[in-house]
Amino acid sequence: MLSSRIAVKRNALSVHFTSQFSRLSSSKTSPLELPFPKSISEILSSPPANSSPITVNGWVSGSRTSKNVAFVDVRDGTTFQDIKCIVRPPSLIPSNLNTGSSVTLHGLWTEGKKGSSQAFELQVNGNDNPDAAVKVLGEVEELYPLQKKSHTAQFLRTIPEYRLRTIEMSAILRFRSVVETALVEFFNSAGFTKTHPPLITSSDCEGAGELFKVESNSKVEKGEKFFGKDAYLSVSTQLHLEVMCAALSRVWTLTPCFRAEESDTNRHLSEFWMLEAEVAFVEDVRQLTRFSEMMIKSVVQRLHDNLENSASNLTETIDKQLVETMTSRWEMMLKKDQWDTITYTEAIEILHRSMEEGKTNFKFAPIWGESLKSEHEKWLAGSYFGNPVFVTDYPLNEKPFYMQINPENSDNIDKATVACFDLLVPDIGELIGGSMREHDLKKLEAEISRREMDVSPLQWYLALRENGSVPHGGFGMGFERLLQYLSCTENIRDVVPFPRHVDSCPC
Amino acid sequence: MLSSRIAVKRNALSVHFTSQFSRLSSSKTSPLELPFPKSISEILSSPPANSSPITVNGWVSGSRTSKNVAFVDVRDGTTFQDIKCIVRPPSLIPSNLNTGSSVTLHGLWTEGKKGSSQAFELQVNGNDNPDAAVKVLGEVEELYPLQKKSHTAQFLRTIPEYRLRTIEMSAILRFRSVVETALVEFFNSAGFTKTHPPLITSSDCEGAGELFKVESNSKVEKGEKFFGKDAYLSVSTQLHLEVMCAALSRVWTLTPCFRAEESDTNRHLSEFWMLEAEVAFVEDVRQLTRFSEMMIKSVVQRLHDNLENSASNLTETIDKQLVETMTSRWEMMLKKDQWDTITYTEAIEILHRSMEEGKTNFKFAPIWGESLKSEHEKWLAGSYFGNPVFVTDYPLNEKPFYMQINPENSDNIDKATVACFDLLVPDIGELIGGSMREHDLKKLEAEISRREMDVSPLQWYLALRENGSVPHGGFGMGFERLLQYLSCTENIRDVVPFPRHVDSCPC
Repeated sequence: MLSSRIAVKRNALSVHFTSQFSRLSSSKTSPLELPFPKSISEILSSPPANSSPITVNGWVSGSRTSKNVAFVDVRDGTTFQDIKCIVRPPSLIPSNLNTGSSVTLHGLWTEGKKGSSQAFELQVNGNDNPDAAVKVLGEVEELYPLQKKSHTAQFLRTIPEYRLRTIEMSAILRFRSVVETALVEFFNSAGFTKTHPPLITSSDCEGAGELFKVESNSKVEKGEKFFGKDAYLSVSTQLHLEVMCAALSRVWTLTPCFRAEESDTNRHLSEFWMLEAEVAFVEDVRQLTRFSEMMIKSVVQRLHDNLENSASNLTETIDKQLVETMTSRWEMMLKKDQWDTITYTEAIEILHRSMEEGKTNFKFAPIWGESLKSEHEKWLAGSYFGNPVFVTDYPLNEKPFYMQINPENSDNIDKATVACFDLLVPDIGELIGGSMREHDLKKLEAEISRREMDVSPLQWYLALRENGSVPHGGFGMGFERLLQYLSCTENIRDVVPFPRHVDSCPC
Repeated sequence: MLSSRIAVKRNALSVHFTSQFSRLSSSKTSPLELPFPKSISEILSSPPANSSPITVNGWVSGSRTSKNVAFVDVRDGTTFQDIKCIVRPPSLIPSNLNTGSSVTLHGLWTEGKKGSSQAFELQVNGNDNPDAAVKVLGEVEELYPLQKKSHTAQFLRTIPEYRLRTIEMSAILRFRSVVETALVEFFNSAGFTKTHPPLITSSDCEGAGELFKVESNSKVEKGEKFFGKDAYLSVSTQLHLEVMCAALSRVWTLTPCFRAEESDTNRHLSEFWMLEAEVAFVEDVRQLTRFSEMMIKSVVQRLHDNLENSASNLTETIDKQLVETMTSRWEMMLKKDQWDTITYTEAIEILHRSMEEGKTNFKFAPIWGESLKSEHEKWLAGSYFGNPVFVTDYPLNEKPFYMQINPENSDNIDKATVACFDLLVPDIGELIGGSMREHDLKKLEAEISRREMDVSPLQWYLALRENGSVPHGGFGMGFERLLQYLSCTENIRDVVPFPRHVDSCPC
C-alpha cells in the first residue's frame, strides 16, 4: 500500500525540518565556487590583490576619452556600483563602444589614487593581448534609449525590454529579492510552513466580481470546459490556506493573485503578489495585529541595519538629504514599541472631530457603517498618528462573510462588528487586512444564508468546520504595497518588473 | 522628477543588499516571542521544566481509555511528532473526544518513565480546574474519514478539505517548505536576485499549444478584451527572465506555471511551480550543468545532514529499512564528485548498443533526430548510470527556436545540434532542461524565419539582442518533480496540496 509505506518514510523526512531551522539558517556556509566569471558584486565584496589581473563583464554605464587616456564605467546589475576602468592608450577602445554596450575588459586591479573617490579601479593597458583588453560583446543602436541619462517612469514603462536595465529599476528588483528573503526567514523563525495554494480555483473567496476566467485555449473554441466547470484565477488564497492551517497550525504563502479591476490608480495592479498567513489556536484579533507588526518590523529592521552598516558607502555616493527622507520612514516604523490600535468606531469619532474642529476637509464625510475611504485612511496614518495604525472591529456589513462576529450588538445587524483589522500606513492607506475566521459551523452557515449567498461552491470550506474545527485567524498583505511603501515609490507599477493592468500586457 | 530622485534614493537601498547577504543570513536571531500559544514543535524543541504546567493544543491522533487512566495523543502539524497525554481520572475525558477532534489539554509536563519510548508526557489530572483539563474545541462527525488509520492516496485526493491533515500529506507540505528555503539560501549565496516575472503574458514561450487563456469574467460575456489583446497563463517565464538577466546578470524565480495538458499521467499537472534561472556572461552549456548540479546537491546535502542529526529520533519512530531506501537515493546523488555528462548522440549510441546486446527491450526504438522517450530517459538514469545524468547537445529540430546552434554541422539542419542539456534522474526522467540562448540577433531571426514562426509577438524579445546583447543561458526545473524524486513519491499529485489537472478543480 502506497499510503502506509509513504507515511512511515515521511516521518523520517519531517522529524527535524521545523525545529532545526534556526540552526540551519545560522550555520556558516563556505563561499560557493561558481562556474561563472566573477560578478561585480563579488569582485567588490572580496577584491583581488592589488595589481592582479582580472576580467570584468558588464554594460557600459558611461565613458569618456581624452588624448592619453579613456575612462569606462562598467555595471552588471549585481550591485548598483560600477567598476571604473582606466584605459591607456585610449586607442584600445573599440569604436563601437557606447553607453549601454555589453563589454568585457581585462586589466590589472589597482588601488585608487589617494584622494580619489573610488577605492579601486581597473587599469587596462593591453600589454598581454591588446585585442582582448576591451571587447564589445553587444553593440547598441544609435537610437538606444538608455544612452540618455534620465527618463521618466512613464516613458520607461513603454520599453519593458530595456526598463529594468536602469539603475532605479534594477535596484528595485534587488530590493524585492531582499524583502522576500527577509520574510522567508521571519516566517521560518516563527515556525510557519510556507505553502503553495492553487491559483486556479472554482471558488470566489471574496464573494465579489472582478475575476479572471481561465480556460484551455483549445477548449474555448469548442465551448468545452477543461476542468469540467468554470475556473478562475485566485483573488485570495485564504480559503485554501485555512484548509492547510487546519492541518499544520501555522501557514503562510507568497503567491500571485489576480483582480480584473478596471480602475487605473497608482496602487492597483491586475496581477500582484500577495502574502497571506493563517494561524490556528488564536482567540483574539490582537494576537494577529501584534504578529503582523512583528513581521513588518523584522523586515524594516533588516533594511535599516544594512543602511547603517553601509554608511561610508552612502556618504560617497548619494545625497544625504534623500537618504534621510527614506530612512526616517523606517525609523519611524521602528520607534514605537507598539503601533497604535483603535477600533473602527474610534476612527470614525476621530475623523468626525477633526472635521468639526475644521482641521480636515474630506471629500467624503466619515459615516459609521460605511467603509473608510482612502483619504480617511491616509489622514489617520499620515497626519493623525504619523505612523502605521491598526484599525479593528469594522461593521459586519462592510466585510466578507467569513469574519467572526463580535458578541456586542451581534443581534443587531446594523450595529454589529467583526473581529477584524486593517493596518493603515501613511501615503498608502491599507497595507494589511485580516480577521478572526468564524469557526463555528452554525454561525457561519447562518451568515451565509443571511447574505443570500450560494452555499454549494463553499461546501468544502464549510466542511472544515464540521470536523475538528479550531479557532483561527489570518491576514493578507499586498507584497507590492509593502515594497511601494518601504521604497517610497509613487506608483505601484514601478516596483513590478512587468506590470499588468487594464489594456496593458505588452509582452 | 521622479526618476532622478528615486534613482538616488535607490542607490542607498541597493548598496549592500547583495554583498551583505551572507552576513545577514548567518547572523544569530534571538527566538521570537510570538503572541501565540506554543506549538508542539516549539514545546518539543525547547521543553519546559519538569512538572511545570503547560497547555497543549492540537488534534487527537489516537486515544484509549482504561479503568484508571486514559491516553490521548495530540498532534498539531508543526511536526510529525505528537504529545502523549496521560489523563487521570479518565472521567476528565469528555464523551465527544474522538480521533480527529481538536482539543486543548492542560497539565504538567513530565519526564517519561524509564524504559518508556517517549522522553516526555503531559500528566493531566484536573487538580486546578477539572473543566479546563481536557476541552474539545471541535468535534468530529461519526463518518469523519480520518478516524480510520490508513487510506489510499487516491481516496485522500477525493477529500481535499481533510487530506492535508494526514501525517503523510502534512509531512510533504513541510518538506516543500524546507526545500524551498534551501533553494532560496542557495541562490542567495550564489549572488542571484529572486525575481517575479509575470504569469499573464501575451507571448507563448515554447511556441507550442496547451495554453490557458485568461479573460476578465465580465469582458468574456461582452466579447471584449481586458488587456486589449489575447492573454495567456505563462507556460515558462524564460523570456521575461532573459530580460531581467540582461539587467541583473544572475536571476532566478520560483513561480506557478500552467499547461492545459490533457494527458493523465503520474508526472504532469496543469498547475505546477517552476524554478527557472538565467545567467549572463556564460559561454558554455557545461557551466550551466555544473551549476544546476551544485543547486540540487546543496538541497540534498541539507536534507541528508538533517537526517543524520536526527538519527536518534528516527530509530525510535520508523522502520530503518525504509529510511535506508530513501536516504540511499540522497547518498547516491551526493556520492560522485560530478555526475556523468553525455551528448545526445552518445545517449542514442548507448541505447542502440543495449538493444543490440539484448539488455533492453524498449517500446520505441531510439532514433537519432527524435526526442528521447520517457522509457529511454528512465533507463539511462536508472539502469545504465544509476544516478542523475546530463545529456547535452540535442538535435536542433527537437528543441525550441531560442537555443544556440552548435558550430558543428550548423549548415546541415538535419544533423545540427543545439547547446542544451537535460538532467535525467532515475524513476522520473527529465528533471531539468536548459540551454545557451542565441544572443546573436541575426542568427535568431534566421532561425525564427526558418521555422516560419510569427515574429511580431516576439519583437520585444528580439530587441534584447539589438542593444547590449550578452552571451547567456539558463534552465528550468519543475519544483514538484524535484519534490517527487527526493521524497520517493509515486504520483506527482501527492506532493501538491491541491492538484489541478484535466477535469479536476474541485475547490
